[in-house]
Amino acid sequence: MNGAESLARTLLACGVDTVFANPGTSEMHFVSALDRVPGIRCVLGTFEGVVTGAADGYARLAGRPAATLLHCGPGLGNGIANLHNAHRANSPVVNIVGDQATYHKPLKPLLAADTEGFARGVSAWVRTATRVEDVGRLAAEAVAAASSAPGDVATLILPSDASWNDGGAVGTPVAPIASHRVPDDAVAEMAKILRSGEPAVIMLAGRTLRAAALADAHRIAAKTGARLAAETFIEHIERGRGRFDVERVPYVIDPAVAFLAGTRHLILVNAHDPVGFFAYPGKPSRMAPPDAAVHILARPEDDGPDALRRLADLLGCRPVAPLRREKVEPPKGATSPEALARALSALLPENAVVVDESITMGAALYSGTASAARHDWLQLTGGAIGIGIPLATGAAVGAPGRRVVNLQADGSALYTLQGLWTQAREKLDVTTVILSNRTYAILFAELAGVGATRGPASNELFSLAGPAHDWISLAKGFGVEAARVETMEEFADLFAAANRRRGPFLIELVVA
Amino acid sequence: MNGAESLARTLLACGVDTVFANPGTSEMHFVSALDRVPGIRCVLGTFEGVVTGAADGYARLAGRPAATLLHCGPGLGNGIANLHNAHRANSPVVNIVGDQATYHKPLKPLLAADTEGFARGVSAWVRTATRVEDVGRLAAEAVAAASSAPGDVATLILPSDASWNDGGAVGTPVAPIASHRVPDDAVAEMAKILRSGEPAVIMLAGRTLRAAALADAHRIAAKTGARLAAETFIEHIERGRGRFDVERVPYVIDPAVAFLAGTRHLILVNAHDPVGFFAYPGKPSRMAPPDAAVHILARPEDDGPDALRRLADLLGCRPVAPLRREKVEPPKGATSPEALARALSALLPENAVVVDESITMGAALYSGTASAARHDWLQLTGGAIGIGIPLATGAAVGAPGRRVVNLQADGSALYTLQGLWTQAREKLDVTTVILSNRTYAILFAELAGVGATRGPASNELFSLAGPAHDWISLAKGFGVEAARVETMEEFADLFAAANRRRGPFLIELVVA
Repeated sequence: MNGAESLARTLLACGVDTVFANPGTSEMHFVSALDRVPGIRCVLGTFEGVVTGAADGYARLAGRPAATLLHCGPGLGNGIANLHNAHRANSPVVNIVGDQATYHKPLKPLLAADTEGFARGVSAWVRTATRVEDVGRLAAEAVAAASSAPGDVATLILPSDASWNDGGAVGTPVAPIASHRVPDDAVAEMAKILRSGEPAVIMLAGRTLRAAALADAHRIAAKTGARLAAETFIEHIERGRGRFDVERVPYVIDPAVAFLAGTRHLILVNAHDPVGFFAYPGKPSRMAPPDAAVHILARPEDDGPDALRRLADLLGCRPVAPLRREKVEPPKGATSPEALARALSALLPENAVVVDESITMGAALYSGTASAARHDWLQLTGGAIGIGIPLATGAAVGAPGRRVVNLQADGSALYTLQGLWTQAREKLDVTTVILSNRTYAILFAELAGVGATRGPASNELFSLAGPAHDWISLAKGFGVEAARVETMEEFADLFAAANRRRGPFLIELVVA
Repeated sequence: MNGAESLARTLLACGVDTVFANPGTSEMHFVSALDRVPGIRCVLGTFEGVVTGAADGYARLAGRPAATLLHCGPGLGNGIANLHNAHRANSPVVNIVGDQATYHKPLKPLLAADTEGFARGVSAWVRTATRVEDVGRLAAEAVAAASSAPGDVATLILPSDASWNDGGAVGTPVAPIASHRVPDDAVAEMAKILRSGEPAVIMLAGRTLRAAALADAHRIAAKTGARLAAETFIEHIERGRGRFDVERVPYVIDPAVAFLAGTRHLILVNAHDPVGFFAYPGKPSRMAPPDAAVHILARPEDDGPDALRRLADLLGCRPVAPLRREKVEPPKGATSPEALARALSALLPENAVVVDESITMGAALYSGTASAARHDWLQLTGGAIGIGIPLATGAAVGAPGRRVVNLQADGSALYTLQGLWTQAREKLDVTTVILSNRTYAILFAELAGVGATRGPASNELFSLAGPAHDWISLAKGFGVEAARVETMEEFADLFAAANRRRGPFLIELVVA
């Protein structure tokens, strides 16, 4: 057995049966091994950012890692942005990267590059399998590293000679490190703080945003008067009718500071002490009041849901009923983020997956959809734009039978639009809603935020008009049917029809 | 003056007046400075790989660096592949990357990343301007570092507080390091070897592929019987009618070894000892015979053209006439790389710039166009596919008034197709010829090269059919007019018409 085959068989033995791939020559033996080892689904992306973002989306829905397959050096480079997002979202991803043969790389062929250096900044674990007999063992370790709490990117670099040499052995699956149980005295300490009645905010992230943990958080809030908040960028929340909602800390620093003003105790449950996405002249970096006490109930690698449940029980909190809001009618007339939120509240299919890369329109969309049908909401987490289309693609592979709705800003969509083709090829049930405002609206907002006025360069660099992108033609070019709408009536009809069909559809929603 | 304005004014003072940009929030003050400092042309790319590839194309044609403007961390990540190509092509590029404020980054905001680490593998020079008073000085050093022989990528990282703080000063231009003059005894030594009459190959790269140096190389070859060869991947050659041509070392290892078989002396002039692009089981890494003596006349940073001229004079070589081939008629009938080469020989506009990312079809296109009208030929150099559309975009900005013809494989085009929009927006005179074979043909060839047969995974991962990309719709979506042709007659008519118009046009040439 050569190294490549030992890799493929080890992945299968460790439960990794899906590979998102954009291979090159240095990965040829691994592709050949996949030809011989049945049971692994290969999904092609025509750009590496599609591959890495899809692996992230798959992991968020399937709850276990897919593998990527990337070409050496610059191929990995193209995948860095969405690996960064996966890294920040604690998504388990087994990132397989080919490389030049060990004896060839020192001769500096043109495509030799610093593969390990590129990988390090976006991975919890990086190894290069220089010897064939190590490939299987390292692959099993990579799966364990990716799957260990709270989840992360593990990069295994496979030089082509380690891939083609004989002497490979299937690696024995390694148990990932489970999330740590929070000690009883930490739970008791938080109960004491919450009983004090002093203003407290419980900051939620990671697994505490799943439905059961949110119910526990809400019974704590109901009993103690503590406020609940989620981090600004959340990788995955289970919400909608019959569940519980939670507000997110605002993105803009002044509203964020106002949101947390008066907080005496900030209790972190799998969450971080919130800091601004960027720094701004004369504004604070931290969002919480400087005199608030920061308490950690659970670190990201701890079992936050279990700690919340025990905390609720210790406090004697009784179950509270989720809000059951009335059904809403789809809106008519002019398009706006608020109108789109109402349309989603009315029309989102039951058990849908919403992928949110709506950027400037995101706050209204999130806050306006708490009473939509039961759904999972995935968001751009690491701030590297260009995740929406790939994330939706991977989510659809990871959650077959569910409709994926991608709320997608137009500027961000352009980074990884190639993923539409993968949706067509794999006949994935994705409805993409392009929020077409033909501008990097957030940058005009940020320009104003630093106190500057518009001028010729900023107008040139922040506008996407002249010519406007024609998303109907772009989608058609990738094999995805599409239509443009300019009113909410048109949107409602088309959105409902799109969600009833099988396979992908794209709606360009023109917004001001 | 804040740091951002000192950067803009320093770039202008150092002769850098073109910025290819895809900015984000951390670059806001620099954009605002560009609003206030007239004289810099800003060209927007909607994906960073477009920006970095365009800066490379600009440099190859204009002979001086443009600046890029990239967003922190993952934004740079998206630009890595084409920075790798620029690095390997010795293209001068001043790569400006924003970053989190110095005091904010340690708090680990979501978009904090290893910006320096990503830059190091693709840059000759990397600095972070942490203090506002250093920004201008470091910018001047960056331009000098990029422009020093033989040219390379220089990355200046600009934390946002160094950008917005007051106290900036315009940097004094720094003289780049010129190419080194090759010592007389090295020239004399090569003359002695060439006079021996033993089989010699003069390997050319870099500036020795410009017209005047090629004429000198040809008079040496005519006098001494030495063979001339260019590296497999050349960044820029001046060729066509009235000039001199040179064969390239083949890409595939067996023909490459055969090409150099019998060589007794390998004389490198700005070139490297040729090694395979990849290693293959049981094949050599080096292409030259093991017993050939390798002589360095000029290293990449040496003045190769001057050394060739002095060598020719020392050998008493007389000028030789360039080959003046007859005009050819455009071919008819079925499409093929050979037919396309004949069509280019017949129809290429005088003084065109050809950008070659034709991959599997490249050998036939290059060898078949030596008698085309006078042109510059630029090729993918570093092996990171996805350079063609950006390189053509930048070349058109760097060589106004000349027609750019981009010979573009379809699979590679998909990596950076967003550059078509920049061509439309800037009304650039680019004719893109998509060589549409709906497959990663090179990967099937490489699979066979490693002795494997096709199977389900390789068929899934190397085919781009199902659905085929519709390049006419894709081009239209980006605002570029386009048409599809299936015969050489249709191609000839459309190609001639496309080259007569102003602005971009795309031809999808369907090939088997």
